[in-house]
Amino acid sequence: MPFLRFDLIEGRSEAEVKMILDVTHEVLLQTLKIPKRDRYQVVHEHRPSQVVLEDTGLGFARSDRAVVLQLTSRPRSREMKEAFYRMLVDRLESRCGIPPSDVVVNFVTNADEDWSFGAGRAQFLTGELQ
Amino acid sequence: MPFLRFDLIEGRSEAEVKMILDVTHEVLLQTLKIPKRDRYQVVHEHRPSQVVLEDTGLGFARSDRAVVLQLTSRPRSREMKEAFYRMLVDRLESRCGIPPSDVVVNFVTNADEDWSFGAGRAQFLTGELQ
Amino acid sequence: MPFLRFDLIEGRSEAEVKMILDVTHEVLLQTLKIPKRDRYQVVHEHRPSQVVLEDTGLGFARSDRAVVLQLTSRPRSREMKEAFYRMLVDRLESRCGIPPSDVVVNFVTNADEDWSFGAGRAQFLTGELQ
Repeated sequence: MPFLRFDLIEGRSEAEVKMILDVTHEVLLQTLKIPKRDRYQVVHEHRPSQVVLEDTGLGFARSDRAVVLQLTSRPRSREMKEAFYRMLVDRLESRCGIPPSDVVVNFVTNADEDWSFGAGRAQFLTGELQ
Repeated sequence: MPFLRFDLIEGRSEAEVKMILDVTHEVLLQTLKIPKRDRYQVVHEHRPSQVVLEDTGLGFARSDRAVVLQLTSRPRSREMKEAFYRMLVDRLESRCGIPPSDVVVNFVTNADEDWSFGAGRAQFLTGELQ
Repeated sequence: MPFLRFDLIEGRSEAEVKMILDVTHEVLLQTLKIPKRDRYQVVHEHRPSQVVLEDTGLGFARSDRAVVLQLTSRPRSREMKEAFYRMLVDRLESRCGIPPSDVVVNFVTNADEDWSFGAGRAQFLTGELQ
Protein backbone atom coordinates (compact mmCIF):
# COMPACT_ATOMS: atom_id res chain seq x y z
CA MET A 1 0.00 0.00 0.00
CA PRO A 2 2.09 2.82 0.60
CA PHE A 3 1.62 5.06 -2.42
CA LEU A 4 4.94 6.55 -3.47
CA ARG A 5 5.39 9.75 -5.42
CA PHE A 6 8.93 10.43 -6.62
CA ASP A 7 10.11 13.84 -7.78
CA LEU A 8 13.34 13.65 -9.77
CA ILE A 9 15.29 15.98 -11.99
CA GLU A 10 15.19 14.95 -15.62
CA GLY A 11 18.21 13.42 -17.28
CA ARG A 12 18.12 9.83 -16.13
CA SER A 13 17.61 6.90 -18.48
CA GLU A 14 14.53 4.72 -18.07
CA ALA A 15 16.79 2.01 -16.68
CA GLU A 16 18.16 4.37 -14.05
CA VAL A 17 14.69 5.42 -13.00
CA LYS A 18 13.58 1.80 -12.90
CA MET A 19 16.48 0.94 -10.64
CA ILE A 20 15.49 3.69 -8.19
CA LEU A 21 11.93 2.34 -8.12
CA ASP A 22 13.05 -1.26 -7.74
CA VAL A 23 15.51 -0.48 -4.97
CA THR A 24 12.99 1.62 -3.09
CA HIS A 25 10.44 -1.17 -3.28
CA GLU A 26 12.94 -3.71 -1.99
CA VAL A 27 13.71 -1.46 0.95
CA LEU A 28 10.02 -1.04 1.71
CA LEU A 29 9.54 -4.80 1.67
CA GLN A 30 12.32 -5.24 4.18
CA THR A 31 11.58 -2.37 6.53
CA LEU A 32 7.80 -1.93 6.46
CA LYS A 33 7.10 -5.64 5.96
CA ILE A 34 4.57 -5.05 3.23
CA PRO A 35 3.34 -7.78 0.87
CA LYS A 36 5.53 -8.41 -2.13
CA ARG A 37 3.18 -7.01 -4.73
CA ASP A 38 2.14 -4.02 -2.59
CA ARG A 39 3.71 -1.60 -5.00
CA TYR A 40 2.24 1.70 -6.15
CA GLN A 41 4.76 4.16 -7.53
CA VAL A 42 4.59 7.22 -9.76
CA VAL A 43 7.45 9.39 -10.94
CA HIS A 44 7.59 13.04 -11.90
CA GLU A 45 10.67 14.21 -13.77
CA HIS A 46 11.25 17.92 -13.57
CA ARG A 47 13.42 20.49 -15.24
CA PRO A 48 16.08 21.74 -12.82
CA SER A 49 14.26 25.05 -12.47
CA GLN A 50 11.20 23.22 -11.16
CA VAL A 51 12.93 21.82 -8.09
CA VAL A 52 14.41 23.83 -5.22
CA LEU A 53 15.94 21.82 -2.41
CA GLU A 54 17.87 23.50 0.31
CA ASP A 55 19.00 21.90 3.55
CA THR A 56 17.50 23.58 6.64
CA GLY A 57 21.07 24.36 7.61
CA LEU A 58 22.01 20.69 7.91
CA GLY A 59 24.93 21.02 5.52
CA PHE A 60 23.67 18.94 2.61
CA ALA A 61 24.77 19.93 -0.87
CA ARG A 62 22.03 18.91 -3.26
CA SER A 63 22.78 17.82 -6.81
CA ASP A 64 20.81 16.97 -9.92
CA ARG A 65 20.65 13.39 -8.66
CA ALA A 66 18.28 14.47 -5.88
CA VAL A 67 15.39 12.18 -5.04
CA VAL A 68 12.34 13.57 -3.29
CA LEU A 69 10.00 10.83 -2.14
CA GLN A 70 6.59 11.29 -0.60
CA LEU A 71 4.89 8.19 0.77
CA THR A 72 1.23 8.02 1.70
CA SER A 73 0.58 5.12 4.03
CA ARG A 74 -1.54 3.76 6.84
CA PRO A 75 0.18 4.30 10.19
CA ARG A 76 3.68 2.86 10.49
CA SER A 77 5.84 2.81 13.58
CA ARG A 78 8.57 5.32 14.15
CA GLU A 79 11.08 2.47 14.13
CA MET A 80 9.92 1.26 10.73
CA LYS A 81 10.21 4.72 9.26
CA GLU A 82 13.69 5.24 10.67
CA ALA A 83 14.78 1.86 9.31
CA PHE A 84 13.32 2.79 5.94
CA TYR A 85 15.19 6.10 5.79
CA ARG A 86 18.49 4.46 6.70
CA MET A 87 18.29 1.51 4.37
CA LEU A 88 16.94 3.62 1.52
CA VAL A 89 19.94 5.94 1.43
CA ASP A 90 22.33 3.02 1.77
CA ARG A 91 20.83 1.16 -1.15
CA LEU A 92 20.32 4.20 -3.35
CA GLU A 93 23.98 5.00 -2.85
CA SER A 94 25.36 1.52 -3.41
CA ARG A 95 23.07 0.49 -6.25
CA CYS A 96 22.19 3.79 -7.95
CA GLY A 97 25.12 6.04 -7.09
CA ILE A 98 22.89 8.60 -5.38
CA PRO A 99 24.60 10.51 -2.58
CA PRO A 100 22.87 10.19 0.83
CA SER A 101 22.82 13.97 0.92
CA ASP A 102 20.43 13.94 -2.05
CA VAL A 103 17.60 11.89 -0.56
CA VAL A 104 14.65 13.76 0.96
CA VAL A 105 11.71 11.72 2.23
CA ASN A 106 8.41 12.43 3.90
CA PHE A 107 5.45 10.34 4.99
CA VAL A 108 1.78 11.25 5.04
CA THR A 109 -0.51 9.02 7.10
CA ASN A 110 -4.05 7.99 6.32
CA ALA A 111 -6.37 5.15 7.41
CA ASP A 112 -7.84 1.81 6.40
CA GLU A 113 -10.92 3.35 4.85
CA ASP A 114 -8.81 5.59 2.65
CA TRP A 115 -7.71 2.93 0.19
CA SER A 116 -9.27 1.23 -2.79
CA PHE A 117 -6.86 -0.82 -4.87
CA GLY A 118 -9.30 -1.76 -7.61
CA ALA A 119 -12.84 -2.86 -8.35
CA GLY A 120 -14.28 -0.07 -6.22
CA ARG A 121 -13.73 -1.94 -2.99
CA ALA A 122 -12.01 -0.70 0.15
CA GLN A 123 -9.96 -3.82 0.66
CA PHE A 124 -8.85 -3.03 4.20
CA LEU A 125 -12.51 -2.80 5.19
CA THR A 126 -13.77 -5.84 3.31
CA GLY A 127 -11.10 -8.00 4.92
CA GLU A 128 -9.41 -8.81 1.62
CA LEU A 129 -6.32 -7.08 3.00
CA GLN A 130 -5.19 -6.63 6.56
CA MET B 1 -13.14 21.02 -1.76
CA PRO B 2 -11.59 17.83 -2.13
CA PHE B 3 -8.45 18.46 -4.13
CA LEU B 4 -7.95 15.70 -6.66
CA ARG B 5 -4.64 14.67 -8.18
CA PHE B 6 -4.88 12.20 -11.05
CA ASP B 7 -1.93 10.17 -12.29
CA LEU B 8 -2.55 8.70 -15.74
CA ILE B 9 -0.43 7.08 -18.40
CA GLU B 10 -0.03 9.26 -21.46
CA GLY B 11 -1.85 8.42 -24.67
CA ARG B 12 -5.36 9.72 -24.05
CA SER B 13 -6.90 12.56 -26.02
CA GLU B 14 -7.86 15.74 -24.20
CA ALA B 15 -11.50 14.71 -24.61
CA GLU B 16 -10.82 11.38 -22.92
CA VAL B 17 -9.05 13.04 -20.03
CA LYS B 18 -11.86 15.57 -19.72
CA MET B 19 -14.41 12.78 -19.54
CA ILE B 20 -12.50 11.14 -16.68
CA LEU B 21 -12.46 14.45 -14.81
CA ASP B 22 -16.12 15.15 -15.49
CA VAL B 23 -17.24 11.68 -14.47
CA THR B 24 -15.18 11.78 -11.30
CA HIS B 25 -16.65 15.13 -10.34
CA GLU B 26 -20.19 13.87 -10.94
CA VAL B 27 -19.51 10.90 -8.68
CA LEU B 28 -18.11 13.18 -5.98
CA LEU B 29 -21.21 15.36 -6.15
CA GLN B 30 -23.43 12.35 -5.64
CA THR B 31 -21.48 10.51 -2.98
CA LEU B 32 -19.76 13.19 -0.91
CA LYS B 33 -22.58 15.72 -1.35
CA ILE B 34 -20.24 18.56 -2.15
CA PRO B 35 -21.39 21.84 -3.72
CA LYS B 36 -21.66 21.81 -7.49
CA ARG B 37 -18.71 24.07 -8.21
CA ASP B 38 -16.49 22.49 -5.54
CA ARG B 39 -14.10 21.21 -8.14
CA TYR B 40 -10.30 21.25 -7.91
CA GLN B 41 -8.57 18.76 -10.19
CA VAL B 42 -5.08 18.41 -11.59
CA VAL B 43 -3.79 15.72 -13.93
CA HIS B 44 -0.33 14.29 -14.41
CA GLU B 45 0.26 12.22 -17.53
CA HIS B 46 3.23 9.90 -17.28
CA ARG B 47 5.28 7.77 -19.57
CA PRO B 48 4.60 4.08 -18.91
CA SER B 49 8.00 3.71 -17.27
CA GLN B 50 7.03 6.34 -14.70
CA VAL B 51 4.15 4.34 -13.25
CA VAL B 52 4.40 0.98 -11.48
CA LEU B 53 1.14 -0.45 -10.20
CA GLU B 54 1.00 -3.93 -8.81
CA ASP B 55 -1.91 -5.44 -6.92
CA THR B 56 -0.98 -6.47 -3.35
CA GLY B 57 -1.89 -10.00 -4.44
CA LEU B 58 -5.51 -9.07 -5.11
CA GLY B 59 -5.45 -10.39 -8.67
CA PHE B 60 -5.81 -7.15 -10.60
CA ALA B 61 -4.14 -6.93 -13.99
CA ARG B 62 -3.22 -3.29 -14.56
CA SER B 63 -3.22 -1.77 -18.03
CA ASP B 64 -2.20 1.51 -19.61
CA ARG B 65 -5.70 2.78 -18.86
CA ALA B 66 -4.88 2.84 -15.14
CA VAL B 67 -6.16 5.75 -13.10
CA VAL B 68 -4.48 6.63 -9.82
CA LEU B 69 -6.45 9.19 -7.87
CA GLN B 70 -5.39 10.88 -4.67
CA LEU B 71 -7.97 13.06 -2.94
CA THR B 72 -7.14 15.51 -0.18
CA SER B 73 -10.25 16.36 1.81
CA ARG B 74 -11.66 17.40 5.14
CA PRO B 75 -12.94 14.34 7.02
CA ARG B 76 -15.54 12.25 5.19
CA SER B 77 -17.39 9.27 6.57
CA ARG B 78 -16.36 5.75 5.81
CA GLU B 79 -19.71 5.20 4.12
CA MET B 80 -19.19 8.17 1.80
CA LYS B 81 -15.77 6.95 0.80
CA GLU B 82 -17.02 3.44 0.11
CA ALA B 83 -19.87 4.80 -1.99
CA PHE B 84 -17.40 6.97 -3.88
CA TYR B 85 -15.11 4.04 -4.67
CA ARG B 86 -18.01 1.92 -5.91
CA MET B 87 -19.71 4.51 -8.06
CA LEU B 88 -16.41 5.78 -9.44
CA VAL B 89 -15.40 2.44 -10.92
CA ASP B 90 -18.91 1.88 -12.26
CA ARG B 91 -19.01 5.20 -14.05
CA LEU B 92 -15.41 5.10 -15.26
CA GLU B 93 -16.18 1.71 -16.78
CA SER B 94 -19.50 2.58 -18.37
CA ARG B 95 -18.61 6.07 -19.57
CA CYS B 96 -14.84 5.90 -20.15
CA GLY B 97 -14.20 2.21 -20.81
CA ILE B 98 -11.78 1.94 -17.89
CA PRO B 99 -11.69 -1.52 -16.30
CA PRO B 100 -12.53 -1.56 -12.56
CA SER B 101 -9.24 -3.38 -12.06
CA ASP B 102 -7.42 -0.24 -13.21
CA VAL B 103 -8.73 2.23 -10.62
CA VAL B 104 -6.57 2.91 -7.55
CA VAL B 105 -7.78 5.55 -5.10
CA ASN B 106 -6.58 6.97 -1.83
CA PHE B 107 -7.74 9.73 0.46
CA VAL B 108 -5.67 12.07 2.63
CA THR B 109 -7.53 13.96 5.36
CA ASN B 110 -6.93 17.49 6.55
CA ALA B 111 -8.95 20.12 8.43
CA ASP B 112 -11.01 23.28 8.03
CA GLU B 113 -8.07 25.57 8.62
CA ASP B 114 -6.09 23.87 5.88
CA TRP B 115 -7.94 25.39 2.94
CA SER B 116 -7.84 28.70 1.14
CA PHE B 117 -9.77 28.78 -2.12
CA GLY B 118 -8.78 32.28 -3.15
CA ALA B 119 -8.25 35.83 -1.93
CA GLY B 120 -6.04 34.65 0.92
CA ARG B 121 -8.99 33.70 3.09
CA ALA B 122 -9.58 30.40 4.88
CA GLN B 123 -13.20 30.12 3.84
CA PHE B 124 -14.12 27.35 6.26
CA LEU B 125 -12.96 29.57 9.11
CA THR B 126 -14.53 32.80 7.93
CA GLY B 127 -17.90 31.12 7.56
CA GLU B 128 -18.05 31.68 3.81
CA LEU B 129 -18.11 27.90 3.45
CA GLN B 130 -19.32 25.22 5.81
CA MET C 1 10.43 21.69 6.24
CA PRO C 2 7.21 22.22 4.77
CA PHE C 3 7.33 20.41 1.44
CA LEU C 4 5.61 22.49 -1.23
CA ARG C 5 4.08 21.14 -4.42
CA PHE C 6 3.00 23.77 -6.93
CA ASP C 7 0.63 23.06 -9.80
CA LEU C 8 0.75 25.75 -12.47
CA ILE C 9 -0.48 26.10 -16.01
CA GLU C 10 2.34 26.12 -18.53
CA GLY C 11 3.35 29.30 -20.28
CA ARG C 12 5.49 31.06 -17.72
CA SER C 13 9.18 31.75 -18.18
CA GLU C 14 11.68 30.17 -15.82
CA ALA C 15 12.19 33.58 -14.25
CA GLU C 16 8.47 33.92 -13.59
CA VAL C 17 8.30 30.50 -11.99
CA LYS C 18 11.37 31.29 -9.93
CA MET C 19 9.77 34.47 -8.66
CA ILE C 20 6.69 32.54 -7.51
CA LEU C 21 8.92 30.11 -5.64
CA ASP C 22 11.05 32.84 -4.11
CA VAL C 23 8.07 34.90 -3.01
CA THR C 24 6.33 31.89 -1.51
CA HIS C 25 9.43 30.98 0.44
CA GLU C 26 9.78 34.53 1.76
CA VAL C 27 6.18 34.42 2.95
CA LEU C 28 6.76 31.08 4.67
CA LEU C 29 9.79 32.47 6.45
CA GLN C 30 7.77 35.37 7.77
CA THR C 31 4.55 33.59 8.70
CA LEU C 32 5.58 30.09 9.76
CA LYS C 33 8.92 31.21 11.23
CA ILE C 34 10.86 28.43 9.57
CA PRO C 35 14.66 28.43 9.25
CA LYS C 36 16.01 30.31 6.27
CA ARG C 37 17.20 27.31 4.30
CA ASP C 38 14.13 25.20 5.13
CA ARG C 39 13.08 25.14 1.50
CA TYR C 40 11.71 22.16 -0.38
CA GLN C 41 9.70 23.04 -3.49
CA VAL C 42 8.68 21.18 -6.62
CA VAL C 43 6.68 22.53 -9.54
CA HIS C 44 4.39 20.80 -12.00
CA GLU C 45 3.46 22.72 -15.12
CA HIS C 46 0.31 21.47 -16.79
CA ARG C 47 -1.47 21.95 -20.06
CA PRO C 48 -4.66 23.95 -19.52
CA SER C 49 -6.74 20.81 -20.08
CA GLN C 50 -5.00 19.16 -17.13
CA VAL C 51 -6.23 21.65 -14.57
CA VAL C 52 -9.85 22.29 -13.59
CA LEU C 53 -10.40 24.89 -10.90
CA GLU C 54 -13.86 26.07 -10.04
CA ASP C 55 -14.81 28.16 -7.03
CA THR C 56 -17.27 26.37 -4.70
CA GLY C 57 -19.64 29.22 -5.46
CA LEU C 58 -17.34 31.82 -3.94
CA GLY C 59 -17.28 33.97 -7.06
CA PHE C 60 -13.67 33.55 -8.12
CA ALA C 61 -12.90 33.67 -11.83
CA ARG C 62 -9.85 31.49 -12.41
CA SER C 63 -7.33 32.29 -15.13
CA ASP C 64 -4.28 30.65 -16.64
CA ARG C 65 -2.21 32.37 -13.95
CA ALA C 66 -3.73 30.07 -11.33
CA VAL C 67 -1.45 28.74 -8.62
CA VAL C 68 -2.40 25.60 -6.74
CA LEU C 69 -0.15 25.00 -3.77
CA GLN C 70 -0.15 21.97 -1.51
CA LEU C 71 2.04 22.11 1.57
CA THR C 72 2.94 19.10 3.67
CA SER C 73 4.08 20.17 7.12
CA ARG C 74 4.33 19.27 10.76
CA PRO C 75 1.48 20.88 12.72
CA ARG C 76 1.17 24.64 12.39
CA SER C 77 -1.24 26.87 14.24
CA ARG C 78 -4.39 28.11 12.65
CA GLU C 79 -3.12 31.66 13.05
CA MET C 80 0.07 30.87 11.16
CA LYS C 81 -1.84 29.31 8.31
CA GLU C 82 -4.23 32.25 8.05
CA ALA C 83 -1.30 34.67 8.04
CA PHE C 84 0.36 32.59 5.34
CA TYR C 85 -2.72 32.63 3.11
CA ARG C 86 -3.13 36.38 3.46
CA MET C 87 0.47 37.36 2.90
CA LEU C 88 0.89 34.88 0.06
CA VAL C 89 -1.86 36.37 -2.07
CA ASP C 90 -0.67 39.89 -1.32
CA ARG C 91 2.88 39.15 -2.38
CA LEU C 92 1.96 37.02 -5.39
CA GLU C 93 -0.19 39.89 -6.57
CA SER C 94 2.27 42.69 -5.98
CA ARG C 95 5.41 40.87 -7.08
CA CYS C 96 4.14 38.35 -9.67
CA GLY C 97 0.94 39.92 -10.95
CA ILE C 98 -1.16 36.95 -9.89
CA PRO C 99 -4.74 37.83 -9.00
CA PRO C 100 -5.77 36.83 -5.44
CA SER C 101 -8.67 34.99 -7.03
CA ASP C 102 -6.19 32.62 -8.66
CA VAL C 103 -4.47 31.28 -5.53
CA VAL C 104 -5.69 27.97 -4.10
CA VAL C 105 -3.81 26.53 -1.13
CA ASN C 106 -4.13 23.50 1.07
CA PHE C 107 -2.11 22.03 3.92
CA VAL C 108 -1.54 18.39 4.82
CA THR C 109 -0.17 17.68 8.30
CA ASN C 110 2.28 15.01 9.34
CA ALA C 111 4.63 14.46 12.31
CA ASP C 112 8.24 14.69 13.44
CA GLU C 113 9.01 11.10 12.55
CA ASP C 114 7.78 11.62 9.00
CA TRP C 115 10.76 13.59 7.75
CA SER C 116 14.22 12.72 6.58
CA PHE C 117 16.09 15.58 4.91
CA GLY C 118 19.15 13.61 3.90
CA ALA C 119 21.65 10.99 5.01
CA GLY C 120 18.86 8.62 6.04
CA ARG C 121 18.33 10.34 9.35
CA ALA C 122 15.05 11.57 10.81
CA GLN C 123 16.41 14.91 11.89
CA PHE C 124 13.48 15.87 14.10
CA LEU C 125 14.03 12.67 16.08
CA THR C 126 17.80 12.84 16.28
CA GLY C 127 17.64 16.37 17.67
CA GLU C 128 19.48 17.87 14.71
CA LEU C 129 16.34 19.88 14.03
CA GLN C 130 13.62 21.05 16.38
